[in-house]
Amino acid sequence: MVEIWEEKTKYEIWMAIEVLACEAQVKLGVVPSHILDGLRNLEGNFDIHRIQAIEAEVKHDVIAFLSYVAESSNTDIRYLHYGMTSSDVLDTCLSLRLKRSCDILLKNIEEVMHALEARSKATKYLLCVGRSHGVHAEPITFGLKLARFYAEFARNYQRLVSAQQEISVCKISGAMGNFAHLDPSVEEYVAQKLGLVPETIASQVIPRDRYAVLFAIFGVIASSIERVATELRHLQQTEVLEVAEPFTSGQKGSSAMPHKKNPILGENLTGLSRMVRSYVIPAMENVALWHERDISHSSVERFIAPDACITLNFALVRLAGVLRDMKIDEERIKANLNSSKGVLLSQRVLLALVDAGMSRESAYKVVQDSAMDTLNNGSNFIDNVRTHKLLEKITPGVLDSLSNLDYYTQHVDFIFDKTFGKKHK
Amino acid sequence: MVEIWEEKTKYEIWMAIEVLACEAQVKLGVVPSHILDGLRNLEGNFDIHRIQAIEAEVKHDVIAFLSYVAESSNTDIRYLHYGMTSSDVLDTCLSLRLKRSCDILLKNIEEVMHALEARSKATKYLLCVGRSHGVHAEPITFGLKLARFYAEFARNYQRLVSAQQEISVCKISGAMGNFAHLDPSVEEYVAQKLGLVPETIASQVIPRDRYAVLFAIFGVIASSIERVATELRHLQQTEVLEVAEPFTSGQKGSSAMPHKKNPILGENLTGLSRMVRSYVIPAMENVALWHERDISHSSVERFIAPDACITLNFALVRLAGVLRDMKIDEERIKANLNSSKGVLLSQRVLLALVDAGMSRESAYKVVQDSAMDTLNNGSNFIDNVRTHKLLEKITPGVLDSLSNLDYYTQHVDFIFDKTFGKKHK
Amino acid sequence: MVEIWEEKTKYEIWMAIEVLACEAQVKLGVVPSHILDGLRNLEGNFDIHRIQAIEAEVKHDVIAFLSYVAESSNTDIRYLHYGMTSSDVLDTCLSLRLKRSCDILLKNIEEVMHALEARSKATKYLLCVGRSHGVHAEPITFGLKLARFYAEFARNYQRLVSAQQEISVCKISGAMGNFAHLDPSVEEYVAQKLGLVPETIASQVIPRDRYAVLFAIFGVIASSIERVATELRHLQQTEVLEVAEPFTSGQKGSSAMPHKKNPILGENLTGLSRMVRSYVIPAMENVALWHERDISHSSVERFIAPDACITLNFALVRLAGVLRDMKIDEERIKANLNSSKGVLLSQRVLLALVDAGMSRESAYKVVQDSAMDTLNNGSNFIDNVRTHKLLEKITPGVLDSLSNLDYYTQHVDFIFDKTFGKKHK
Amino acid sequence: MVEIWEEKTKYEIWMAIEVLACEAQVKLGVVPSHILDGLRNLEGNFDIHRIQAIEAEVKHDVIAFLSYVAESSNTDIRYLHYGMTSSDVLDTCLSLRLKRSCDILLKNIEEVMHALEARSKATKYLLCVGRSHGVHAEPITFGLKLARFYAEFARNYQRLVSAQQEISVCKISGAMGNFAHLDPSVEEYVAQKLGLVPETIASQVIPRDRYAVLFAIFGVIASSIERVATELRHLQQTEVLEVAEPFTSGQKGSSAMPHKKNPILGENLTGLSRMVRSYVIPAMENVALWHERDISHSSVERFIAPDACITLNFALVRLAGVLRDMKIDEERIKANLNSSKGVLLSQRVLLALVDAGMSRESAYKVVQDSAMDTLNNGSNFIDNVRTHKLLEKITPGVLDSLSNLDYYTQHVDFIFDKTFGKKHK
Repeated sequence: MVEIWEEKTKYEIWMAIEVLACEAQVKLGVVPSHILDGLRNLEGNFDIHRIQAIEAEVKHDVIAFLSYVAESSNTDIRYLHYGMTSSDVLDTCLSLRLKRSCDILLKNIEEVMHALEARSKATKYLLCVGRSHGVHAEPITFGLKLARFYAEFARNYQRLVSAQQEISVCKISGAMGNFAHLDPSVEEYVAQKLGLVPETIASQVIPRDRYAVLFAIFGVIASSIERVATELRHLQQTEVLEVAEPFTSGQKGSSAMPHKKNPILGENLTGLSRMVRSYVIPAMENVALWHERDISHSSVERFIAPDACITLNFALVRLAGVLRDMKIDEERIKANLNSSKGVLLSQRVLLALVDAGMSRESAYKVVQDSAMDTLNNGSNFIDNVRTHKLLEKITPGVLDSLSNLDYYTQHVDFIFDKTFGKKHK
Repeated sequence: MVEIWEEKTKYEIWMAIEVLACEAQVKLGVVPSHILDGLRNLEGNFDIHRIQAIEAEVKHDVIAFLSYVAESSNTDIRYLHYGMTSSDVLDTCLSLRLKRSCDILLKNIEEVMHALEARSKATKYLLCVGRSHGVHAEPITFGLKLARFYAEFARNYQRLVSAQQEISVCKISGAMGNFAHLDPSVEEYVAQKLGLVPETIASQVIPRDRYAVLFAIFGVIASSIERVATELRHLQQTEVLEVAEPFTSGQKGSSAMPHKKNPILGENLTGLSRMVRSYVIPAMENVALWHERDISHSSVERFIAPDACITLNFALVRLAGVLRDMKIDEERIKANLNSSKGVLLSQRVLLALVDAGMSRESAYKVVQDSAMDTLNNGSNFIDNVRTHKLLEKITPGVLDSLSNLDYYTQHVDFIFDKTFGKKHK
Repeated sequence: MVEIWEEKTKYEIWMAIEVLACEAQVKLGVVPSHILDGLRNLEGNFDIHRIQAIEAEVKHDVIAFLSYVAESSNTDIRYLHYGMTSSDVLDTCLSLRLKRSCDILLKNIEEVMHALEARSKATKYLLCVGRSHGVHAEPITFGLKLARFYAEFARNYQRLVSAQQEISVCKISGAMGNFAHLDPSVEEYVAQKLGLVPETIASQVIPRDRYAVLFAIFGVIASSIERVATELRHLQQTEVLEVAEPFTSGQKGSSAMPHKKNPILGENLTGLSRMVRSYVIPAMENVALWHERDISHSSVERFIAPDACITLNFALVRLAGVLRDMKIDEERIKANLNSSKGVLLSQRVLLALVDAGMSRESAYKVVQDSAMDTLNNGSNFIDNVRTHKLLEKITPGVLDSLSNLDYYTQHVDFIFDKTFGKKHK
Repeated sequence: MVEIWEEKTKYEIWMAIEVLACEAQVKLGVVPSHILDGLRNLEGNFDIHRIQAIEAEVKHDVIAFLSYVAESSNTDIRYLHYGMTSSDVLDTCLSLRLKRSCDILLKNIEEVMHALEARSKATKYLLCVGRSHGVHAEPITFGLKLARFYAEFARNYQRLVSAQQEISVCKISGAMGNFAHLDPSVEEYVAQKLGLVPETIASQVIPRDRYAVLFAIFGVIASSIERVATELRHLQQTEVLEVAEPFTSGQKGSSAMPHKKNPILGENLTGLSRMVRSYVIPAMENVALWHERDISHSSVERFIAPDACITLNFALVRLAGVLRDMKIDEERIKANLNSSKGVLLSQRVLLALVDAGMSRESAYKVVQDSAMDTLNNGSNFIDNVRTHKLLEKITPGVLDSLSNLDYYTQHVDFIFDKTFGKKHK
């Protein structure tokens, strides 16, 4: 990923675009064919410092590049860049770099999905406590928890595929995007060779709404990363400790407190998510360029294009690693599930009372009282219920059955089928 | 749009969801059929103040609603909400409201597209100056300018269709999303009746990445609105004045300066775009809910769901109106095009010199000097070129042809075909 | 707070500004004095529907207001608004409403500070576990935790005082801010009467950087609210439960699970914080108005000015209430502190080893090993240390003293003095 | 500025902090004095690659640094970092780097102010057209336009001074901020030596609201830069061209169109402003760290602390340069002022009619009609007024005086006095 965003790669892509444009122009007979030999000698062999020295004088990056090529080539290359404008090169290059970055990011999302699928299936029936508002709610399975993340990243995969398509466009239509000095076939040729499609209608530049969508989807993916990271951080709190990030031998948690093992990977992912999300607004502010373009988007993209791709790449790789290597502590998971004195069964009792003829309102109240009593004083909710006068409508047999936690896993197969497709069996 | 977001509508949808869930449960034999009669009597007839009074006591909106239904019905409805959780109702309702809002927004985008298509085709060959960096560049046509916006809104239409699909989900899977107390067929039944699809895998709530995508696309659409608005504001500056917003008889521009006609609609659209864009980040911050859910997203969505839909709706309607009714001043457009003493032809001269054998570098320099000379002192660029010693390589015949501005419209048909499809002819 | 942002209040302030401007003009002899009688008859008595009907025609809010006043008054008021521009009224009114809102918000911050100070002092020496990364670190006191929040809100108080000062400006300098048709003494008079200061130098409007600062400080305060809310939510997790939000009799936690008591106030505050923070960017985007002003800021401020003030007000009041009424569970706090088998003392053992001559590196490693061993297998860290061969450098006497937790409170007085000032004793 | 944010500088500051802490501990008698000799040998002489190699193993930056110092020193330095935690070093270092950065930024703001003051005073009475909504409004002077920016940057200067003060804090209070293993005098000593003040009350870290304020103020300053940049871009549009950015000999505006001179510096500043503003939200999201700290802020600050300081520094220097060197075209300014056929005087005519006894409403209407008539057909507004039947209430003498544009500069001295203080005379 870093390689895509190196200066060297940029010049290579610029050269490739100029060469392809020349090829198309040669085919059209606009440009003499010998120019291609002169250009090809230069490919992949740039004196970056020299280019930058020229740029310092002309204050224009593409002109500096063209001047460099002109002075380095021993052929007549006056037809280089013929009829084109800088943004033809710059924007097509940006699209190509972003497209390649998306290829890598998609692979990384797949890695995250693989890790989630494997860990999810391994814990498919592992009962654990479900929590809403941070408070014990009802039993679920650990596999369901992870399967949810899998489904979210599967959505992100599809979103990124769409967003990648949006920016996989080529623009070789000249200074005003109206092909004034260029045949449209040049754009078609270059696009096809680079695996892009021609822009429908451009100004001097590719319209920035396309990129805004990409950065917005990056922001959504980052938010999903934050969601998983937050869950893992919570599960690693001392009082919970159902999960442990990989902690290598030799690693130190705190400079002051030798006993500490900290979920720093999850915290790091949380911070990185904030950064990737922060690129969304400037990318959107870039859309409203003036008239046929102004160049305010350029400084923004110099920051956010490499930073977003590299940061998101790093975060996804790190996340996949954590998911693959984290320790899931089944003992602790069971202990936490059993720590609530059975009040997690409150809804089952509520529904049993409704089945037995009580109004929902009355049932709710009596079960709430009984549960609160258990939490404050009692030893076990079902025992408490057993002795509760108002709850005697529930027969002992039914009460016994209520404690069977398999009840909560009856539809796990169904959900897994929907989430992973039939293949997972 | 406002109707969708009224309290009354909310309760109607809640009721519809509860009734549909009961219907499905009746089919399954879980719930006795008479409950449906009791519920149907209540439909569309809510005492909102009574519901709010109950909510003040129980501090829970759905429970207040259920209590209200219980006290208002003369039937035994203890099976109402059986096995369900509040979020089953809340999230399915939110999805439905957003889906309906999207239907309206899509229609509005179509209105914007219609206006753009009509005005664009009417000015298809109307030559005007193209500007980059706010500076005269080369001739384009006014139709191309508008066609670009058309293409952008066509993309936005497709994006919104996708985003609408993402949120058109139904969730009736209970407190932990694991169908512990409900058969999955209930969700399928309700979803199908409401024109939604069942959520793949839920926690207590529908995962918030779905909504984050919708608000992100809203933000992109707002940015596109800002782009058009900014263009129209620029074209209405006193010194440019190629366009005029509708200014009705009786309207006043300024309380102090009676001569003023201000592009306030465009400015208003710019401000509204900032607002819609501002909802993106909180929508993304909503994704990382804790564990199986926390309720922090709720207060955010109470603001941004109605505000984003209503504001975007208002902005799109206003934009369509401005585009439909704005005055395009052909005289002024021509005058501006002709005001640059012909230097807009500089690239044509540059390319003619390259054709004539001059290196691009030398040609650039000599044309640049000649253009600067024209701008600072001269009367007309082509005349200036004619008398320039270094430019004599260009034959007078070629020079004459360079002034023919039809050159700049040669590919307008091609671009319009791509933008509007073949149908536009 | 809601009253400040009602339409009625807006018109009252507009009227007050116009009347005060007339008073100043009367003093200058520019305007005849009888106008004041005509105006004063109208004060506090507006037909809002009529004003809105006029606005629908003239499409300008201030002109509609002036027309309404003209038609309602039975006096010659042609000198009303003499030499002024709409923004003189609009911006001075906005400043006044924001200033008044800040007065209320400052009171609310004081309420938060009072609650924090009281709870903090009551738990000044209450030992609890300090956590970094969600992991038990070393003992602190609960009072310190709350005192930190106090100090943060004390900073926010000062920041808001400064930000309030920034926006407490009056602008009566006409259409271009150059006092073309008005004597500067009019502005000085109105400012002084309203408790504002004259703007140093205005365009048509008060420069928007002033308001941007205010909304930025609102965003910081919201982030502080989120910090406290996050802490309280964490302390209320089932596994931690050191704190409990007020839960009134009759309140219901979940429509499905009667046993639940959820920290919904903290979660609600978290969501509200996201909203208030979201207003910062549009407020900053409002700064770069075009030339002497455009009106894009107006639609933004119609949303964010009331919404930010009302939301922040609500959040601060809610926060103060939670802090005042939350239950702090000393038993649970002690239990959590004691649950880590003594490894919290690891740094003390580390330092004791350094004191005894061991290198920091070696000491760190041996203590780390011993702590990990305790966490995985052992029963108590200090006992483990006692029997560890490498740790025998620490004498039994020193070891005994290490367990004395008063060690961790030795500087609490010092910190409280700094935080609350000497007064707290 | 770049130097402040180099790795080398970071290690130098870390070392300085550790040495100062040792000095304080030596004074207290906690630490033997010979350690200082061992440490001082190492100052300013770090093998960064070696430190990074250690960090790769221990996965902790400060521990890696301490290990490096331990292995590089030939003295017994086991008392190094005694009682401290990593954040004591990290946060104090961050504060110091930000404080130094602010020193530079304040100097840069002064440069901007100097340029604005000089250009403003040079054009103090240069009449130009004032524009609201991009539309000609009334005459102002060019100096007023620039003086407004001066006042805005003067405010920004004060804001940055305050924000700098907020973050100029030192934190040496150990792992939980409670001075458990350190005497508070250590912090006081280090703070005083570094020109910082001790944090009032810390957790493991300095509370992040302090930094959030700083980044928020950076965002406001960036927005002010955008405001000036937007103005300069507008004034450089081909149709306006009152101003020209410096364009050096050898510079090229466009690779395709040799005639172009583009306001790229203003556009670049606009883009950079978007970036600096984008750091505000993640800085605010950093405030709500969990409990006594989590480390999610760290990755965010690694990006935004150097990027914000360096980008803002670059932008301010660039802005000062543009303001200093831009060409102000007095001829064009006059031409634009005179291009509106005199309708800019409409308010004066309105007020003259009011003075002559007409109601404001009627006067407004007649002047509006007359101005619209002039703009659409007429040659000159005052001539038009002269012949208008309803306007004959204004005597010819008054009418003549209305054209005197000195009227609009009568209070320029007053405003300049307020803006620049009495000194400017």
